Amino acid sequence: MSKSNFKEPARKVRPSRKGRAARMQKGKSTVPLTSSIFKRNIPRYPLLHTEALEAIEEQADWILKEVGIEFRGDDEALRLFKEAGADVQGERIRFDSGHVTQLCSTAPDSFRMESRQPQHSIILGGDHIVLMPGYGSPFVTDLDKGRRYATLEDFQNFVKLTYQSPVLHHGSGTIVEPVDVPVNKRHLDMVYAHLRYSTKPFMGGVTSPERAQDSVEMAKIMYGADFMQKHCVIQGNINVNSPLVYDHTMSSALRVYAAAGQSVAVSPAIFAGAMSPVTQAAVLAQTHAEAMVGIALSQLVRKGTPVVYGNFNTTMNLQTGSLTFGSPESNLSHMAFTQLGQRLGVPVRSGGGQLSAANSADGQAMQEASTGMMSDILAGANMIYHSAGWLEGGLSMGYEKFVMDLDHCGMMLKMAGGITVDKESFGREAYLQTEPGGNFLSTDHTMKNFKTANYQSTLGDAGSYEQWTEDGALTLEQRANKRWKKMLEEYQAPEIDPGVDEALLEFMERKKSSMPDKWY
Amino acid sequence: MSKSNFKEPARKVRPSRKGRAARMQKGKSTVPLTSSIFKRNIPRYPLLHTEALEAIEEQADWILKEVGIEFRGDDEALRLFKEAGADVQGERIRFDSGHVTQLCSTAPDSFRMESRQPQHSIILGGDHIVLMPGYGSPFVTDLDKGRRYATLEDFQNFVKLTYQSPVLHHGSGTIVEPVDVPVNKRHLDMVYAHLRYSTKPFMGGVTSPERAQDSVEMAKIMYGADFMQKHCVIQGNINVNSPLVYDHTMSSALRVYAAAGQSVAVSPAIFAGAMSPVTQAAVLAQTHAEAMVGIALSQLVRKGTPVVYGNFNTTMNLQTGSLTFGSPESNLSHMAFTQLGQRLGVPVRSGGGQLSAANSADGQAMQEASTGMMSDILAGANMIYHSAGWLEGGLSMGYEKFVMDLDHCGMMLKMAGGITVDKESFGREAYLQTEPGGNFLSTDHTMKNFKTANYQSTLGDAGSYEQWTEDGALTLEQRANKRWKKMLEEYQAPEIDPGVDEALLEFMERKKSSMPDKWY
Repeated sequence: MSKSNFKEPARKVRPSRKGRAARMQKGKSTVPLTSSIFKRNIPRYPLLHTEALEAIEEQADWILKEVGIEFRGDDEALRLFKEAGADVQGERIRFDSGHVTQLCSTAPDSFRMESRQPQHSIILGGDHIVLMPGYGSPFVTDLDKGRRYATLEDFQNFVKLTYQSPVLHHGSGTIVEPVDVPVNKRHLDMVYAHLRYSTKPFMGGVTSPERAQDSVEMAKIMYGADFMQKHCVIQGNINVNSPLVYDHTMSSALRVYAAAGQSVAVSPAIFAGAMSPVTQAAVLAQTHAEAMVGIALSQLVRKGTPVVYGNFNTTMNLQTGSLTFGSPESNLSHMAFTQLGQRLGVPVRSGGGQLSAANSADGQAMQEASTGMMSDILAGANMIYHSAGWLEGGLSMGYEKFVMDLDHCGMMLKMAGGITVDKESFGREAYLQTEPGGNFLSTDHTMKNFKTANYQSTLGDAGSYEQWTEDGALTLEQRANKRWKKMLEEYQAPEIDPGVDEALLEFMERKKSSMPDKWY
Repeated sequence: MSKSNFKEPARKVRPSRKGRAARMQKGKSTVPLTSSIFKRNIPRYPLLHTEALEAIEEQADWILKEVGIEFRGDDEALRLFKEAGADVQGERIRFDSGHVTQLCSTAPDSFRMESRQPQHSIILGGDHIVLMPGYGSPFVTDLDKGRRYATLEDFQNFVKLTYQSPVLHHGSGTIVEPVDVPVNKRHLDMVYAHLRYSTKPFMGGVTSPERAQDSVEMAKIMYGADFMQKHCVIQGNINVNSPLVYDHTMSSALRVYAAAGQSVAVSPAIFAGAMSPVTQAAVLAQTHAEAMVGIALSQLVRKGTPVVYGNFNTTMNLQTGSLTFGSPESNLSHMAFTQLGQRLGVPVRSGGGQLSAANSADGQAMQEASTGMMSDILAGANMIYHSAGWLEGGLSMGYEKFVMDLDHCGMMLKMAGGITVDKESFGREAYLQTEPGGNFLSTDHTMKNFKTANYQSTLGDAGSYEQWTEDGALTLEQRANKRWKKMLEEYQAPEIDPGVDEALLEFMERKKSSMPDKWY
């Protein structure tokens, strides 16, 4: 039934394919039944002209030919590249101009990720926009309990909040690091939470090939090995050890997901000036080179592996060493990066939407986050990481910031729907019901359209100063404090087949008891 | 010497043209000597395609032909339009399709506004970006004294802060309403403050034709009547009484500025659903129609009058009646409006940059403001009103918000400079000084470029959580509190010819003593 090493549990708990498919169709949602397949209806921002983009691509080729890239400790990756005709010297691989681009050509320009609740299936690529919450914070913060290390309960909370939000389409992976769980067992609890408390497509473990394989196996318990041969339900987020290094952990995790027919998002992580030259043109060329090589490896493992062309680059204050986010330079390079990915013909990850270096969910946080999000949406990124919650340059996930960002995600999606220009939208009849100097509030056209015309902010307070003062003069952050608690109170888990749940728990238990705890 | 009614002061205090010109060249600045002539180096965002823009233009023509527009109490305006061939019935004017567009065709596509400090002269139109602070708030607020009615001292403070900021190019007009000065005398104190405490181009009174004339006369004392026949130094901001009405106050003030060879910015003020149909396509068509008619009038008064095609439209929460700002719908219509203005061939005002309905300078304020500002910058607006300070939908000007916005203006201008893609920016030599897995911090390329590569935020704190906590865990708003006070402490007034200053004060005194105070 499965190509993997996963051993069938002693008791047959997984239902038949037919039963599973039927359940997937029937899945009831406790969230609004909006489709997660969201298509933009506005143009992409054409930041760089073709000549500039070609020059960047040529520079990427120069890097791969003259400097090369290293795969450290991964003989299988080196073998695959050698077999494909690359120049492999020890762990260094060099490519002729155009070779890596050509190896990427078998990656699909768009693909679906399936959910057992069909309305939560998504499409990555083309004109589609997929938003996902933050990834990777070791800390959480909220106004009640302050800043502290994240726990599994926090992780589960953010999975639940993500499941509840109609503006997040993807569950992310390690939304926060559950540091109360041993490092070598975290992935099990995280994957279980994604499968149990949400139905949105998600990312599994990547911190070792075994953990990647465990993640794939748990997905198979839910979705079936056969189904996963032809359908993508899980992704691995593969970070590059920039500059120009893939370490064994990442490249072998990449190979696990690709071999299983699942997706990888390849993301060079570059802080300009440290992991690359400080100028944005160099950041773009190097990111392009590094990302393409990961995509090429996925295609060598399995042609047609669904990939996401990723990046995570930002600026640094080179006097203090602090990372800066939402900066003009990083916003520009996110835009240009989207253009490069579109030229390569694959779905594009934006480095991050609502990024911020701020230490609280204040004006700085929203200034940086909003600006970055606008850049990604207008540029046409397909998959926007870190669309909710990020603070402190990713060190902390803020509960308040999370729901503040959700409101802004809603605005951005409404904006990406564009302006309708047609006969109805001109409202000619309204002009015949009123006069110059008159009021359109009571015209039929207004009555008919006012409920749907405008996005209704869920947290913004546009009321009077007097009323706001009477209500306690709460900032957006303070109002957000009530929102996330209310959401968690109202959370209802999606249905799950009890047999599947039992199999997942059994798998976890078996894996956990097979190894001692590791805390580093 | 002057075409105006201004009577020469008894004493000859104004220096000769030659002396004035010499002084303008020598003018010393206490602000960074960056040129205020800023050109964008990034493309305009092409939100709507040509067919949609043409449909909006056709709908504007339909409105002007089938409904028409009223000029109330302004016989001269009616006469001018009748003479130009429009269909004038009472105060209602109707136009054949294309007629108003044709009347606008003599307006220049760009023009200069001169400053006595040449580095503060600006160009409006083309690829130029001009940022100006807020306009019109009756209240001010800061963290020390809270929210209160604005006074002349507040007005002067904001003129000084504007003068000091290298990222604001234009002084605005009634930045805040100095409510401690009688309504019929405020314009004198405001124009004096713009001329005395700043040298940036500015806007004069528009609340009656006499006040507009006084403003022009005071500008003449500084710049000379002859100079102003050929050069623009002052503008009037002309609001339309939307829907489809110009009242006498505004249309006659428009005529005063145009007759004096100065500039008018024509700004329909539309809250969608009340002053127009609620759909954005209708807002755009009606705004286009209304703005064009004002521009046409300026050209009938004096061909070649330098104009700005303006708009001030936003959304309402039609359930509560609250105005909302930075909303997705208004951001989109600002973008489309910029396209319409470019097609008309005149400089475009964006309704406003850093608008917000928030009652404090919190996350909501910066979320709304940043999103709106990004829309305007990317769309290619030439003159961005309300780029600093706005709170409460314009009811209040925040001292902290002002400097928070200034920082963001700096980021936006840096972004509008685009990405440099050339040989130097690729930094090939840096790759030859390091290795895969290495560090670029010490390469020659980083050393050479790190100081100029990235915008340095003046208020953003990207430092560690621990350091931020030790420093008092200040929000952006709290940090901004120190900034504006420091700026005001460091303020140094620009030089002014003592004779000009005396003449300005004499003019004010004479005007003030010629009429009783009016407080409404």
